[in-house]
Amino acid sequence: MRAAARLGQYAARSIGLTAPPHAAKPAHMLDVRPVGYVIGLLIAALGATMLVPMVLDFALSDGNWNGFLQAALVSVLSGGLMALACANGVRKGLTIEQTFLLTTGVWAALPVFGALPFLLGAPGAGWTDAYFEAMSGLTTTGSTVFSGLDDLPRGTLLWRSMLQWFGGIGIIVVAMAFLPELRVGGMQIFKSEAFDTFGKILPRAAEIASRISAIYMFLTVACFIAYRLSGLGSFDALNHALTTIATGGFSTGDASFGAYRGAPEYVAAAFMLLAALPFVRYVQLLSGQSAPLWRDAQVRGMFRVMLALVLVLVLYRVASNGDALAPALREVIFNLTSILTGTGYASTDYQLWGALPVALFFFAGLIGGCAGSTACSIKIFRYQVFLSALRVQIRMINSPRGIFTPRYDGRPVDHDVLSSVMSFFMLFSLTLGVLAVLLSMTGLDFITSVSGAATALANIGPGLGAEIGPAGNFAGLNDAAKWILTAAMLIGRLEIITVYVLFTVRFWRR
Amino acid sequence: MRAAARLGQYAARSIGLTAPPHAAKPAHMLDVRPVGYVIGLLIAALGATMLVPMVLDFALSDGNWNGFLQAALVSVLSGGLMALACANGVRKGLTIEQTFLLTTGVWAALPVFGALPFLLGAPGAGWTDAYFEAMSGLTTTGSTVFSGLDDLPRGTLLWRSMLQWFGGIGIIVVAMAFLPELRVGGMQIFKSEAFDTFGKILPRAAEIASRISAIYMFLTVACFIAYRLSGLGSFDALNHALTTIATGGFSTGDASFGAYRGAPEYVAAAFMLLAALPFVRYVQLLSGQSAPLWRDAQVRGMFRVMLALVLVLVLYRVASNGDALAPALREVIFNLTSILTGTGYASTDYQLWGALPVALFFFAGLIGGCAGSTACSIKIFRYQVFLSALRVQIRMINSPRGIFTPRYDGRPVDHDVLSSVMSFFMLFSLTLGVLAVLLSMTGLDFITSVSGAATALANIGPGLGAEIGPAGNFAGLNDAAKWILTAAMLIGRLEIITVYVLFTVRFWRR
Repeated sequence: MRAAARLGQYAARSIGLTAPPHAAKPAHMLDVRPVGYVIGLLIAALGATMLVPMVLDFALSDGNWNGFLQAALVSVLSGGLMALACANGVRKGLTIEQTFLLTTGVWAALPVFGALPFLLGAPGAGWTDAYFEAMSGLTTTGSTVFSGLDDLPRGTLLWRSMLQWFGGIGIIVVAMAFLPELRVGGMQIFKSEAFDTFGKILPRAAEIASRISAIYMFLTVACFIAYRLSGLGSFDALNHALTTIATGGFSTGDASFGAYRGAPEYVAAAFMLLAALPFVRYVQLLSGQSAPLWRDAQVRGMFRVMLALVLVLVLYRVASNGDALAPALREVIFNLTSILTGTGYASTDYQLWGALPVALFFFAGLIGGCAGSTACSIKIFRYQVFLSALRVQIRMINSPRGIFTPRYDGRPVDHDVLSSVMSFFMLFSLTLGVLAVLLSMTGLDFITSVSGAATALANIGPGLGAEIGPAGNFAGLNDAAKWILTAAMLIGRLEIITVYVLFTVRFWRR
Repeated sequence: MRAAARLGQYAARSIGLTAPPHAAKPAHMLDVRPVGYVIGLLIAALGATMLVPMVLDFALSDGNWNGFLQAALVSVLSGGLMALACANGVRKGLTIEQTFLLTTGVWAALPVFGALPFLLGAPGAGWTDAYFEAMSGLTTTGSTVFSGLDDLPRGTLLWRSMLQWFGGIGIIVVAMAFLPELRVGGMQIFKSEAFDTFGKILPRAAEIASRISAIYMFLTVACFIAYRLSGLGSFDALNHALTTIATGGFSTGDASFGAYRGAPEYVAAAFMLLAALPFVRYVQLLSGQSAPLWRDAQVRGMFRVMLALVLVLVLYRVASNGDALAPALREVIFNLTSILTGTGYASTDYQLWGALPVALFFFAGLIGGCAGSTACSIKIFRYQVFLSALRVQIRMINSPRGIFTPRYDGRPVDHDVLSSVMSFFMLFSLTLGVLAVLLSMTGLDFITSVSGAATALANIGPGLGAEIGPAGNFAGLNDAAKWILTAAMLIGRLEIITVYVLFTVRFWRR
């Protein structure tokens, strides 16, 4: 929370309080100190939050508290020193390059320290597994390399959930305050919107962050209460509330949601959907405007897709498999919402439902939720922008002399945005292909390679097949595959191009 | 050949001799008679060519000649009547709508008659199989639902090869003369090019068609001679020459190219590559200009991709599997060229080479050859246009005030083309996803559904897995799956949007 607020303040300085970042004076070499300063502070803050699971394990007389203490000390010290070392370079704002570096840097560096408790305490993992798990947490992916979750200390389980929760709020702030400014993947479409919403009363990103944080916290508490009422114990309810609102998907047991059949599945589905809606709409809702939420093109699109897929799958299960309607409906709603929002819980191995569900779950994961939420993947709005562009193309084929403009949510979409959206889609597909080939190079079979690449890049959680499917986990993969998937989670979470930009020579020289 | 020339004449009338099609006077309802007229003539011409396999089977004293005679009669009669019935509606040119309808109409209607010999003669297939096989032929896909090829009458085998050969020349004419005018999938990028090439001396599509036909014929004869010299018998050499130059992939035996290991594999690889180059460059080569061929961005791109993939695969086989270099190199070059050009021969089951080759072959099939050739799939130039657009976007991120233009082959790419190219890519991906889901609905497993959808949409031939992989065929699939794949072949061959346009209301009303 503290981390998020701090991040927000930086966003504020770079966007609201200072001149727009691209107007900042160009230096000859990229000054990384302001970036290091923020990352250092965030690392220290992350270290401080390790005291929470430490206290829990200490109270439960679990020797594991010691690992958290060490991890906290290392993180606070390292982060603090880093911030101090960079403090002399802090300026009023961040250039656009610094903002890019900050975004990727945060998600690459924080898992290093978030991984420490897994190294120094239970389960005593090596770097590959610990960093994978922390990355899966902070990117809200939810794939796990740990098995025997039920026997892990409660502190360790809580830390996994907390990582996802931090990652969730972090990505909302980045999606609302940073990405539109960075003009990445068509997110600039939400630029005017986010600021229109706040009008002149709330022009600054720090205020966005604090408002969003309040809503995020409120949803988490509401989810916790609902889980408690539906029968979960306090600890399980807390952990699942943290990972539901982050659309993360880490669970407290190897059975994932298989341990909570029935009412909790409906609770989870409801809150996963709520967490996949654009958070800016909640801010508007709080100020009494409910219309923007119901009229939001993304929201409508997501519910339509959801409804259609639920119908198809329930019909398939009832008609083709002869399953009873009520449990089929519940299982479909829960598991589909989990995949569509990129959460990644599973209450059953839906691969056993038949051939259609396997393919449908795979492709549903490539749709994703709404931009400006914790949901991941390609996202509804990109499909909507594309379909509008396609309609325009067909019109132009029919009337070559007419002039038509693609629209999104009633407003025209300019070339810049359209081309960003389409580039994102292609970049996603190409990256997916390359990742799948790389994974297959490590010896994984076709279905594991392709679904592993997709689930990591779209930050979902489970893949397909016996090994990494909803009934399995990522523990048995070789180290090379784990590192490829770790990179994929990072790239996918930051909308791909944000990361790739850092690899261009031009970026570092000016 | 006659068919192609006739098609070319129509293209000429609609493009060269009359006002541009979009300037044609709009009617209130689409007049389908000119389209019916051409399709009728093509059907009659196709029927006439059935006399070739008929004569062959008659000469071999194979009773199967009777099936060809019946099929020829039905086709010539039906086609002739259709042309007669529509003759009163023939105008000087075709409107753009009529051109669209003609393109899809030809590839939907001709397989109906092309299928007749399979129904009325050997192997006595039903409509589903016969139409699938004819569609696979005319779209130069090469997937087969017939097993026991070695025992089929020679006439039937020849007819399969002829269908691919007709489909190959047909698609080159359509790609060069029709698609750029229809502004489909970014093919308009080649508009000025194709006509610049011919300058003012050869401004008409009919002349394009006749020049291309000569080159196509020359390559086929050269390929036949090369196959003979490498040891194939006359009949096998003829059939494989027809299906190599069409990048089709039908073979005369169940073992496909497994029966011709060694030198014939190199011959095939060379001619598949030649057939996947832009045919307009050959026209220039004939008039003494060799530079355009070597400098063509598509040609260079394709060879680079080819080289990189061959290196990776050979290294993998030698280093990881410990295979001998010479046979590994030969098998990799042959099978990779076959998939990359969308031909679809297989000389061995490359799925047994390991996990990497499976994934690599799958994604290589989604690259494809050059536009303006018989090759299929997404095609090299679309990746090149996209990568240029991506570079521009990254530059714009780095220098938000700069103005940069994506380029292809040195020339700027305008918004219209860029957006067409990207739309094609997205449309391809979405169609692939929908087809895979539909196939899985018929009960096919994930790998068969996804690779089946890909191989049909990209007109390659073999899929992945035990059933439809390089060592299998499509015979065992259920009828629903076969019809879905048949539709996919048609949609993919005509660059997707050409077919989809027909399903818009606007298309039929004006």
